[in-house]
Amino acid sequence: MSDSPPATGVADLLGVLAYAELTAFLRLAEDAARLAPSLTDRAALSGLAATEYGHFRLLGDRLAELGADPEAAMAPFVEALDDWHVQTRPGDWLEALVKAYVGTGIALDFYREAARHVDPVTRGLVEEALVDEGRSEFAVERVRAALKEDPKVGGKLALWARRMVGEALSQGQRVAAARPALAKLLVNGGQEDLAEIGRLFARLTEAHGKRMAALGLTPGP
Amino acid sequence: MSDSPPATGVADLLGVLAYAELTAFLRLAEDAARLAPSLTDRAALSGLAATEYGHFRLLGDRLAELGADPEAAMAPFVEALDDWHVQTRPGDWLEALVKAYVGTGIALDFYREAARHVDPVTRGLVEEALVDEGRSEFAVERVRAALKEDPKVGGKLALWARRMVGEALSQGQRVAAARPALAKLLVNGGQEDLAEIGRLFARLTEAHGKRMAALGLTPGP
Repeated sequence: MSDSPPATGVADLLGVLAYAELTAFLRLAEDAARLAPSLTDRAALSGLAATEYGHFRLLGDRLAELGADPEAAMAPFVEALDDWHVQTRPGDWLEALVKAYVGTGIALDFYREAARHVDPVTRGLVEEALVDEGRSEFAVERVRAALKEDPKVGGKLALWARRMVGEALSQGQRVAAARPALAKLLVNGGQEDLAEIGRLFARLTEAHGKRMAALGLTPGP
Repeated sequence: MSDSPPATGVADLLGVLAYAELTAFLRLAEDAARLAPSLTDRAALSGLAATEYGHFRLLGDRLAELGADPEAAMAPFVEALDDWHVQTRPGDWLEALVKAYVGTGIALDFYREAARHVDPVTRGLVEEALVDEGRSEFAVERVRAALKEDPKVGGKLALWARRMVGEALSQGQRVAAARPALAKLLVNGGQEDLAEIGRLFARLTEAHGKRMAALGLTPGP
């Protein structure tokens, strides 16, 4: 039906994931430099950042393998992802930890959704990224310890997490609207279906709720 | 002669290298985010940053293996290295590239010097870091291309490189004075000898001159 190359959706998917990883790498590094209260904490968040760079490399290499220009594949998603980071710049170390955990979590959920709809080689890549799932667990430990010491920070952090997810859904809707090939690929490769996209976002939001509980941050009333 | 544990010099050496790598990682990431003119350039400098993080991990793990606390081993060197980075914050992309190449180069020279004076396991680590020597070559290509296009930038970049090395020697002297065990280890484990330290710095400066030539930046008159 379309005369765009068959790989458009896949190039979009790899492009958005690649830019998400590259920019997560840079933002986590920035938060580590700016907010970590000790060298040990700085090293831990830096480690998470370096893992994201590793994922970026895998995705960029796969794009090149498929004959796509990585820069061109990432370009359509720069604005949405940069805007998300501007809207969710952590103000302190605990916010940085919650962002690292929530942001990595949303990304991994998205990988899981994507894995259902791509070719086996790309799926392999996605699974490689999923292997690192435990990497952000240090953030959970530290946030739970902080909550134990001062339960009052919980309300503020819960609102913070809620804002991050709200911004992510908003940017996600924007991207889904602007990139129909990507939206199609994510909903079983069938007709572009905004209701299906809505259900996908509902699954992501549900998974987010579970992460909030893991952090000890129950949703507000 | 000294009643400090025998590993003080080695812990210092691993500590200064570890913090140098951790902070290089963070600063390169910052420069990539702040100054790269394209996503491809941003990804290239990010790749160099991620490599530094890998070195940091090796060094930190070795410190832990030797029973040292990595944070404590790094702490004495934080001020000198942070000061160096504050004094050498690049103002544009070309300065960032020259800094990446020169800074990585000085670090690798220092690894090479260090490798002559440490135990075989630590030497193995150091050699692993040296394997990545070619990583900053992309900076050379880009700087040479920029010089070809506009030879006038050469004078400004040569001064910039000179300042970086001057600041590095100054911080290095400060560290050598404050950490006699490290200074001793670097000059054949013999008597602390400021003249030997001077010769070590002379070798580092000479190697720097060769890098300037590789960049197409000949020293000024």
